[in-house]
Amino acid sequence: MTTTIDGARIAREIRAGVAERVARLTPDGRVPGLATILVGDDAASAVYVAVKRRAVREAGMRDVHRHLPEEATHGTVAAAIDELAADPDVSGILLQLPLPAHLDAAPLIDRIPVAKDVDGLTTASAGRLARNERGLRPCTPSGVIELLDAEGIELKGACATVVGWGELVGRPLAQLLLRRGATVTVAHEFTADLAAVTRPADVVVAATGVRGLIGPEHIKPGATVVDVGIHRTPDGLTGDVRAAELDGIAGRITPVPGGVGPMTIAMLLVNTLRAAEWAAGREAVPA
Amino acid sequence: MTTTIDGARIAREIRAGVAERVARLTPDGRVPGLATILVGDDAASAVYVAVKRRAVREAGMRDVHRHLPEEATHGTVAAAIDELAADPDVSGILLQLPLPAHLDAAPLIDRIPVAKDVDGLTTASAGRLARNERGLRPCTPSGVIELLDAEGIELKGACATVVGWGELVGRPLAQLLLRRGATVTVAHEFTADLAAVTRPADVVVAATGVRGLIGPEHIKPGATVVDVGIHRTPDGLTGDVRAAELDGIAGRITPVPGGVGPMTIAMLLVNTLRAAEWAAGREAVPA
Repeated sequence: MTTTIDGARIAREIRAGVAERVARLTPDGRVPGLATILVGDDAASAVYVAVKRRAVREAGMRDVHRHLPEEATHGTVAAAIDELAADPDVSGILLQLPLPAHLDAAPLIDRIPVAKDVDGLTTASAGRLARNERGLRPCTPSGVIELLDAEGIELKGACATVVGWGELVGRPLAQLLLRRGATVTVAHEFTADLAAVTRPADVVVAATGVRGLIGPEHIKPGATVVDVGIHRTPDGLTGDVRAAELDGIAGRITPVPGGVGPMTIAMLLVNTLRAAEWAAGREAVPA
Repeated sequence: MTTTIDGARIAREIRAGVAERVARLTPDGRVPGLATILVGDDAASAVYVAVKRRAVREAGMRDVHRHLPEEATHGTVAAAIDELAADPDVSGILLQLPLPAHLDAAPLIDRIPVAKDVDGLTTASAGRLARNERGLRPCTPSGVIELLDAEGIELKGACATVVGWGELVGRPLAQLLLRRGATVTVAHEFTADLAAVTRPADVVVAATGVRGLIGPEHIKPGATVVDVGIHRTPDGLTGDVRAAELDGIAGRITPVPGGVGPMTIAMLLVNTLRAAEWAAGREAVPA
């Protein structure tokens, strides 16, 4: 029997927990606020930002938004970030990616102060993670760890293989799994024999961007399979894993949709709350 | 037949190459300079600093040194770093560790500007490595990569296992191996079955601090074994690997002493030269 991990339910519970903590904060402190910055009119980006803003309001947090025109210069975007960085009512700043092609994302991301970096994508946040220091962690890999925790999967001493070495998921996730005491293998496009490194693993995370890459030939019976991929097809959303073929083989599996996806927004809210607590000195820098 | 990798020879060649480039730089620009900061009177640290300073002078570079008293405050050390950071004759700054117990090393290390961080230990440098951006890399793991390159070992598509997840070696080395296209496994004290993750590997790097941990039961015939450990014994220096037992099994092995050790200082000189070229705008930020 393969158990489907209900990411949608776990994400709802986390969001409800954030809302409760926000409600309790309100009397004695500032309401945490998330500022989203959208540059241009990309339709998908507009939808993502709208979903995030709604989640922020539902959690009782302050929704701050800046919509800049497609032709905004580096200076304009930088000034918007600097203004939000200085605003004590803004706990976290999210610069929606991708930016229009004429803008260089890296230096703009790195303008976000580390204490407001709720996406965990600045060089400073990456350095804190690499050096095992406290800080805000990227939302999707944090969400994967939360899912595994919610399912009671022991990571200390487990073998985990991360397939994909991308900046948003694979790289930070490998660090997070190591922090939890897993023996971690990172595989990628140059891996000669993928099955040889996924089959021994107790936990396999697929974050490759290759639809249906992972199948029964890659998975040890009873292993936990986490699918970070999202691909739009005529039959709906699907992931990097051929989930139907793993039924009866995997011990647990995250579905697409309804697995990792909902966790990303839940962790964005968690990070915004942590950033607010960090700023208020109510709590040490988040671990 | 097991080949012993002659790190001492490879390090000498690298240092001679640095000296040549320094000699060629001199007419048109500043002589690169390394500033070492030693706090207190730890005998071992004093020896390490003296060895580094001699290597700097032998390479034709400027040797700048600050010796601060054991009881130096955070403010005194910070001021010394700030002064050297502002000095255009100083290309690189090395804060010798460990510091006296009353000083917190992390914020002092992080005062070193990223462009002068020849030890590659600041949060900013760690972030650049984690994000796959250009920057200066820690000397010992860079030295391991140089040794493997000098021996013509193909890393792209190879399986590499790093045993040890320390800040100075294991963590940055895993990133460097991934950048080169290796499939990388990181093992550590919580790894349940070490041989299971080292035996499949084409390259095994031991950086554990556990004397003689790695033996024939861990190594695939023909694999390359890199020993980063250094342990003082009544019979001289020895490493994390039981080298004698691997004779005839390992394809190539680094000895202790004379393997990785000499590479660390060679890479410090390389980093100082790179920092000088970076500062002069003669070259892009080092990859």
